Amino acid sequence: MTRTTNKETRAFEKWRLRQAALAESFLDGAMARLEKNAPEAIKDLAGVMRYAVLGGGKRLRPLLALAAAEAVGGRAREALPAAAAVEMVHAYSLIHDDLPAMDDDDLRRGRPTCHRVFGEAAAILAGDALLTLAFETLAAAGARKAGPARANAALILLARAAGAAGMVGGQMLDLALERRTKKKAADGDVTGEMARDMEKRKTGEMIAAALTLGAVLAGAGPAAVARLRRIGLAAGLAFQIRDDLLNLSGDPALLGKAVGSDAVRGKSSFPAVMGVRAAEEELAALTAEALAEASAFKTCGENLTFLIDGLVNRRK
Amino acid sequence: MTRTTNKETRAFEKWRLRQAALAESFLDGAMARLEKNAPEAIKDLAGVMRYAVLGGGKRLRPLLALAAAEAVGGRAREALPAAAAVEMVHAYSLIHDDLPAMDDDDLRRGRPTCHRVFGEAAAILAGDALLTLAFETLAAAGARKAGPARANAALILLARAAGAAGMVGGQMLDLALERRTKKKAADGDVTGEMARDMEKRKTGEMIAAALTLGAVLAGAGPAAVARLRRIGLAAGLAFQIRDDLLNLSGDPALLGKAVGSDAVRGKSSFPAVMGVRAAEEELAALTAEALAEASAFKTCGENLTFLIDGLVNRRK
Repeated sequence: MTRTTNKETRAFEKWRLRQAALAESFLDGAMARLEKNAPEAIKDLAGVMRYAVLGGGKRLRPLLALAAAEAVGGRAREALPAAAAVEMVHAYSLIHDDLPAMDDDDLRRGRPTCHRVFGEAAAILAGDALLTLAFETLAAAGARKAGPARANAALILLARAAGAAGMVGGQMLDLALERRTKKKAADGDVTGEMARDMEKRKTGEMIAAALTLGAVLAGAGPAAVARLRRIGLAAGLAFQIRDDLLNLSGDPALLGKAVGSDAVRGKSSFPAVMGVRAAEEELAALTAEALAEASAFKTCGENLTFLIDGLVNRRK
Repeated sequence: MTRTTNKETRAFEKWRLRQAALAESFLDGAMARLEKNAPEAIKDLAGVMRYAVLGGGKRLRPLLALAAAEAVGGRAREALPAAAAVEMVHAYSLIHDDLPAMDDDDLRRGRPTCHRVFGEAAAILAGDALLTLAFETLAAAGARKAGPARANAALILLARAAGAAGMVGGQMLDLALERRTKKKAADGDVTGEMARDMEKRKTGEMIAAALTLGAVLAGAGPAAVARLRRIGLAAGLAFQIRDDLLNLSGDPALLGKAVGSDAVRGKSSFPAVMGVRAAEEELAALTAEALAEASAFKTCGENLTFLIDGLVNRRK
C-alpha cells in the first residue's frame, strides 16, 4: 500500500488486537457452551477442540471476516459468527492434515499437534466436531440477528469453500501432486496451472470465504461479494507463492524455521514448477491486483487494506 | 403395530423401494456434480464418497426423512435434501468410525471399509467432504423451494445431532466407556444411565434428526417436530437394545454375523450393564412408546408407522 502514517498504523494495530480478542472470546463461548453440564468424555472432546482453535495463531481469517463486514458498510460484530466459523474450519483442517495418515506432523505453531497430545481418535473426532460446529454457528446466527437468508447464503459459501471442490479437494490434489513429483517420469511434470489450481482450492478458497462470509452476514450485495472473492483468491495465491519463495531463499532466523524443506518433501512449490523469476512476477501481479481491488472499498476499507497488505507483503 | 393387511404391506414395500431409489438418485446427482469438469484427484475423491454413500444399506435414515414429511402433511420429495443430508452424515460417520485409530474395522456391509480400499488419507478426506456436502445440500435447498427459514431450522437440527453434543460426542463417550469396561476396578462400573446417554447421542440423535429434518423441510410446526424427535429417540434406543440382545443370544444364521462379539470387544452393551431382563423390559416400553407416538400421525403416517415398526421389531 502507498504511504501510511504511523497514526494509521497504530489505529490498525489497536483495531486488530481488539477484534482478535473479540473473535477469541466468541470462540471461547462456543466451547464453554459445549462443556456446560456435559459428561466427562464430551468435556474432554471440547478440550481438544479448545486446544486446536484457541492455541494461538494470528487470527488472520477471523480478522478478514470482520474487516470485510466493515468494508461493505456494516459493523464488525455482525460478522463474528462468520469469523468464528472460518477459524473453526481452519483449525479442523490443520488437525486432520497433521494426522499420521496425511502430513504426519508432530508440531504446529511450536506446540505438539493434536493427535500427539490427545491421540488420533480424539483428534479425528475433534476435527469432525469443529467442522460441524462451524455450520451450527452460522445457522444459529440465522436464527438471530443475521436472519436466515444471510445465514443461508453464508452457509453455501462456506460449504463450497471447505468441501470436495474446495479445501478438502485441494488437500487431495496436494497429496496427488506430491506423488507425481516423486515419480515424475511416469506422469509428467507438475505444471504451474496444476499447482495454482491446487493452492486456490487448498488455501485460496477459505481466505476468500473469510471475506465473503463476513460481508454476506453484514448484508453486502453481489458486486461487493464478487470483488471480495477476487481479493481473497489473489491474496491467497500471492501469500502461497511468497511462502514458497521464502522457503527457498528466506532468512531462517526471520522465518523461525528451516528453509529448503519444500524441496526435501517433494512439495510442488511455485518456484520449483515455474522458475523463480516467473514466480516473482506472478507474485507482483497478484499483489498489485489484490491491493487495487481492496482500495475500491474507499471509505471503510482501511483495516481490510492493512490486512491484505500484511498478507501479500509479509517478510516472515 | 396391530393388524396390517397384506395389501397395506405391499403398498408400503412399493413406497419403500420407490423412495429409496429417489434418494439414491439424488445422492448420485450430488456426486456427479462434484465429478463434472473436476481434476482427476477430485474425481477420485468423489469416487471414495460414492463408494461410501452409494454402496448399499437399507436407506433407513432417508426413508425416515421422507416418511416424516408425508406424516406432517407434506410431500416426500420436499424432504429429499434432508434425506440425502442425513445419509451423507451417516456415511461419513461410518468411514471415520471404521478407521484404524477408532474401531479399526476391515469390513462394512460385507465390503472392505473405505480406508482398506482407498487408503487412510483418502478415507479421512472423503468423510470430511461428505459431512461438508450434507450442510451444503441443506443450504442449497434453502436457496430453492424450501426457502432459507426452513433450511436454517433444519441446519441447526442437523448440526446439533451430528456434532460434539450429539453423534461425535457419542463416539467419544463410546470409546471412553470401552476403556472403562476394560479396567472397571479403577473407575467403577458403566451404569445403564451412561450407556443410555451414549447411545442416545451416538445413534438416537441422528435417527431423530432424520425425522425432524424431513418434517421441517416440509413445513411442520413445533408440536409435530417435538413428537417426531421423541419417536426417533425412543426408536433409536429400542433399536440399539434389540441389537445388543440379538448380539447376545440371536441366531447367527439369521443375523449373518457372529454373536457374542460385544462381550469380546468390551462393549458396554445394555444386557451387560443392566441385565437381560431389565433390557427386555426397557425395549418393550420404548417400542410401545415409539409406536403409540407414531400412530398419532393418523391420516398420512402409514409409511412412518411401518418404518418405525420395522426398526423396533426387527429380527435381524
